[in-house]
Amino acid sequence: MIVVVSLNPALDITHRVDGADWAGVNRPDQVHVRAGGKGINVASVLHALGCDVVVTGLAGGHTGDVLRSRLDAGGIAAELTDIAGETRRTFAVVDSKRGETAIFNEPGPPVSADEYEAFRAVYTARLAGASVVVLSGSLPSGLPADTYSGLIAIAADAGVPALLDTSGEALILGAAAGPAVMKPNLAELEAATGCVLAWNGSDRAASVCAVASAADVLRGTGPSAVVVTLGRDGLLAVTGRETWHARSPAVSGNPTGAGDAVAAGLAAGMAAGLSWDDRAAQAAALGAATVAAPVAGEFDHAYYQRAAAGTRVSREDRTCR
Amino acid sequence: MIVVVSLNPALDITHRVDGADWAGVNRPDQVHVRAGGKGINVASVLHALGCDVVVTGLAGGHTGDVLRSRLDAGGIAAELTDIAGETRRTFAVVDSKRGETAIFNEPGPPVSADEYEAFRAVYTARLAGASVVVLSGSLPSGLPADTYSGLIAIAADAGVPALLDTSGEALILGAAAGPAVMKPNLAELEAATGCVLAWNGSDRAASVCAVASAADVLRGTGPSAVVVTLGRDGLLAVTGRETWHARSPAVSGNPTGAGDAVAAGLAAGMAAGLSWDDRAAQAAALGAATVAAPVAGEFDHAYYQRAAAGTRVSREDRTCR
Repeated sequence: MIVVVSLNPALDITHRVDGADWAGVNRPDQVHVRAGGKGINVASVLHALGCDVVVTGLAGGHTGDVLRSRLDAGGIAAELTDIAGETRRTFAVVDSKRGETAIFNEPGPPVSADEYEAFRAVYTARLAGASVVVLSGSLPSGLPADTYSGLIAIAADAGVPALLDTSGEALILGAAAGPAVMKPNLAELEAATGCVLAWNGSDRAASVCAVASAADVLRGTGPSAVVVTLGRDGLLAVTGRETWHARSPAVSGNPTGAGDAVAAGLAAGMAAGLSWDDRAAQAAALGAATVAAPVAGEFDHAYYQRAAAGTRVSREDRTCR
Repeated sequence: MIVVVSLNPALDITHRVDGADWAGVNRPDQVHVRAGGKGINVASVLHALGCDVVVTGLAGGHTGDVLRSRLDAGGIAAELTDIAGETRRTFAVVDSKRGETAIFNEPGPPVSADEYEAFRAVYTARLAGASVVVLSGSLPSGLPADTYSGLIAIAADAGVPALLDTSGEALILGAAAGPAVMKPNLAELEAATGCVLAWNGSDRAASVCAVASAADVLRGTGPSAVVVTLGRDGLLAVTGRETWHARSPAVSGNPTGAGDAVAAGLAAGMAAGLSWDDRAAQAAALGAATVAAPVAGEFDHAYYQRAAAGTRVSREDRTCR
């Protein structure tokens, strides 16, 4: 069983317009509503992979009701603690003419101490017998920035390895609790370490060195392994013993949710006891398959099989110049 | 009792951002949710004026539930017929830096024949003893363009005068049913009559002539009176016997909902048996007050008193050159 924590899920509403008028009235030709937020995205991919997964977290209000009913319809097990506040929405306006997407993320609802305690009891109970816990996404207002570090400590007490994917202060404080894996992107790794980073495909050795060194700086603050997502260049898994670069064939599409698919791939690999090179390959292929899938953030088995077949993993020696 | 018909209400969601990134991720600093759609806006203003009003129409799904609870919280009497489809949302992005607003209007839900019959029974029952009926806004998909003409005929049978405020094909077919008043804006009047119109404040006499002549063309197709809204130049009420121009002091602000406030002012004037010059003055002042109010589409008594005091009504002789 993989436990996913989604403290700030969202109802994702997407409007597709053919050439948006940003100062006028638009009539979207497609409206799509789904259960979202990074934790829910991770759980959706794990469910699609056939993993045994349960989502814990917080949900409230009418948007919370819609979220629960969408998860239920998708067959995704969820044990979301009810809160008085209203689960947030995200709005995406996909401009199919310009090929651009504007995203508007509402802040999360307030969470009372009692509500958080109720969630923590569910979370702690669910850890019994769990193989991995994934903590993913932003924190709603009213929860302190060290929330994830507290949850990682509870998982450690239960002997369950944690994968943390968040940003900002929650990332820095969460790292200190020593999760098994963290999964920043380049910008998050830069913000957490102060290193200025860029991935330059034409000088791969130097790029590997710079990014892996920054990952080691982050590892020095707590996490055992750091997996850095690199967009179309795949990911770099820095484990302390080895550094692996996994990349899938370049695809075009919508990168929304690709990072969450990578997190799901890593968690599934941890649960299955895969070696790090196989985990990295699975995660990179899932990220690429999500980008190529017709609907943003959705998983397509055919795309995944194709991406997995084309994925290459190399062990990097990191003899930095 | 004023009966308002809102066949395609909406849950209006407004995000305020300080400089939107139309190709990136935005975090709105304010999120506002209200019951909306033109009919609901009209009913809200009538309620704020102290009129006895009931909203009839269609609502469904989770958004329909939120809409009902918002009306209830606002003390607005509503008898909305439940439908299987989901009430639509509108999404507005107010960019406070650029001073621009982008609006995204979802299409309305499908409506079955049985659902429409159930609404029509409520509507017909509510007309007994009503003084005025206001039919306002777009039609949801699944309802034919002659829907308003059928409802105006039912009102005529019940001896209740109708005010129609819609656009496109529904406006043209509705006009043929002979409502007491129609309330197009200049663009809607142009589309309905084929006349090319512009309001030129520096040649008011010529503007009055052109707009009133087009209003007479529309009157020739059915409605007894046509009230044309002119933005900051107020409104022109063309009744067949007289033509009145009402204007309030210029205000700056958000024009969203100003046309609905004008419709509410006209309906309240009809219900109270006001003369046409007083109806026109009240409607123009309500429109201006809505523009000046701090929150788009909301009504503020202090602004209304100020606008009413400054409103001027003139009878136009229409000696066209």
